[in-house]
Amino acid sequence: MEVKHVAVDKKTDYKNFPMVPRVVFGRGCFDQLGDILMPKRKQSEAPFIFLVDDVFEGSELASRIPLIFNDQLIFISAHEEPKTSQVDALVKKIRGDFHDLPSGIVGIGGGTLLDLAKAVSILLTNRGSSSDYQGWDLVQKSSIYHVGIPTISGTGAEVSRTTVLLGPEKKLGINSDYTTFDQVLLDPDLTQGVSREQWFYTGMDCYIHCIESLNGTYLNAFSQSYGEKALELCKEVYLGNLTADESREKLMMASWHGGMSIAYSQVGVAHAMSYGLSYLLGVKHGIGNCLVFQHLEEFYPEGVALFNRMRQKHGIRLPKGICANLTDCDFETMISVSLAMEPLWENAIGKNWREIITPEKLECIYRKI
Amino acid sequence: MEVKHVAVDKKTDYKNFPMVPRVVFGRGCFDQLGDILMPKRKQSEAPFIFLVDDVFEGSELASRIPLIFNDQLIFISAHEEPKTSQVDALVKKIRGDFHDLPSGIVGIGGGTLLDLAKAVSILLTNRGSSSDYQGWDLVQKSSIYHVGIPTISGTGAEVSRTTVLLGPEKKLGINSDYTTFDQVLLDPDLTQGVSREQWFYTGMDCYIHCIESLNGTYLNAFSQSYGEKALELCKEVYLGNLTADESREKLMMASWHGGMSIAYSQVGVAHAMSYGLSYLLGVKHGIGNCLVFQHLEEFYPEGVALFNRMRQKHGIRLPKGICANLTDCDFETMISVSLAMEPLWENAIGKNWREIITPEKLECIYRKI
Repeated sequence: MEVKHVAVDKKTDYKNFPMVPRVVFGRGCFDQLGDILMPKRKQSEAPFIFLVDDVFEGSELASRIPLIFNDQLIFISAHEEPKTSQVDALVKKIRGDFHDLPSGIVGIGGGTLLDLAKAVSILLTNRGSSSDYQGWDLVQKSSIYHVGIPTISGTGAEVSRTTVLLGPEKKLGINSDYTTFDQVLLDPDLTQGVSREQWFYTGMDCYIHCIESLNGTYLNAFSQSYGEKALELCKEVYLGNLTADESREKLMMASWHGGMSIAYSQVGVAHAMSYGLSYLLGVKHGIGNCLVFQHLEEFYPEGVALFNRMRQKHGIRLPKGICANLTDCDFETMISVSLAMEPLWENAIGKNWREIITPEKLECIYRKI
Repeated sequence: MEVKHVAVDKKTDYKNFPMVPRVVFGRGCFDQLGDILMPKRKQSEAPFIFLVDDVFEGSELASRIPLIFNDQLIFISAHEEPKTSQVDALVKKIRGDFHDLPSGIVGIGGGTLLDLAKAVSILLTNRGSSSDYQGWDLVQKSSIYHVGIPTISGTGAEVSRTTVLLGPEKKLGINSDYTTFDQVLLDPDLTQGVSREQWFYTGMDCYIHCIESLNGTYLNAFSQSYGEKALELCKEVYLGNLTADESREKLMMASWHGGMSIAYSQVGVAHAMSYGLSYLLGVKHGIGNCLVFQHLEEFYPEGVALFNRMRQKHGIRLPKGICANLTDCDFETMISVSLAMEPLWENAIGKNWREIITPEKLECIYRKI
């Protein structure tokens, strides 16, 4: 397998960051969705396509989705990481089912569903395969109107300008100004049914992300202020004594601010290594980050100590022996995928990262997982 | 004088808040302005109009403004609060000078210049006087593209969906989704020349705003998270030991987050009373808030104590005797303007605010100023 090398972001000038231009926040605000979409309907033949996590099939939430005309509801499993092939198949189906371009795409779910919604909205106006656009600023044409509605908090996918996909050659984001949602709806009540484990792993995606960006070399005051607030909210949620309602609201805001903090920062060691795990084994992003992060005392001593306190408080047992039966070739693959994430390593360690991060070092960490 | 009563925001549903869709942050990023505007130029006959604080006339900053084609640079004094008549005159001038609508308006300065830029961009596409649109959601047509570039930090005008104008009948904002800037450029280096007094008064606009919104009844978790971060940054800037560079960066972010926090919150007693001072005496917003806030221990005991510490640390002496020579009629005017700010009072005190906030009480506070 050949891993394409990722161009290092030169930082010669400052990114003109695209923010989500519309956001509604509040318990129960999901019921405003119909009113929000109405003025965006181009005509009755141009439907809204709702991509919804299949855990909601037959649920009360599904019955509240404001379907009219020929709108389409597609339930999708989030058991696996989103794939370029999955995006391409969805785009093909939508093109086949409708003569006109849809009025928009609405993603309802966790990071997987949000990333699929972003990618589908791009590929409906840009030819070829979604894998053609994995990288930085390769998208040429505006995506169609797309709305993100998280039902679990922590990924930051609701606010970021990337959609991370598992492709035939790499796990890499479509990083583009056209990726950002046009509208986000933040209803903390939607996260009520999340299991304790999933709540922990996905929240830790935000926590680890903050530790990595706040300790990185790319940081500036803009991203620092968002990252600090997200970190503080994570601490309140996982170590404080909040009511269930407060906790859901605050974790939703932690995810939001954590996602914003990425504007002028980058993730680090845990994400770089977790990409290797995902690529080879399909380990999901949230738990993958946790599996790696627990062994990163060398890089993030305070962050790992706090992570362990949170884990203990909530009685979370991470799976063990994930890498026990892997071959040397498997380790090489993971290491190769991980080392290709150059901006992440440069952010975490500095320009001289290659002197410190050797294949041997990564293998040693992977073998502990 | 008759003061029109402001409708109380009913909060039956959650605001779908318009965020600034593009933001660039970084020291020296002002030099990216030309590149940012270029794709927004409709044609060479449709100029950009730069509204710039006249303290920059002949300055190095003015020489860096990327004027091309028939772009127009208009220097404007910020010594007085922005007025509806001033907006109307600017719109008339621009309509007279150019056959085509401008490509956009760029405001460079403090809250006054940013608010003028917002209002002019609205009035170029909406007929009548700017005073017709003072209120909530009265603007019908999209404004033209407009860019905000703050040169002093604290007002939050760069991120808010209002432009507060002194009109013939009232001091009130044009609160509208079309008010929000399309692009904001945050270059902390631009705030280098600000005097100590102005730096304090404008920063305190943010600080007081946070105290009011965090102690208000309208607050939700979205606005709370932004308000808490803004408050924390204000404390770092005014009570910490930062370098000058760090301080400028952090105050710029405090202003940004403070402005965002208003999405689902409202200001309170100081703002309501300061509007009366501004209306009658033309007292500028920042210093007006400080003049009132120092006497509000009853409402914000901790906030006022901290304010006094900040004031002492920076050797700021607030003017005295501002209201010493006013007539009974003058007091009535200020009280009437202030009491008309119903949403502010309801946020500060609760639904029963009229039982607590009497004209006598306000007169007593005004007489201390």
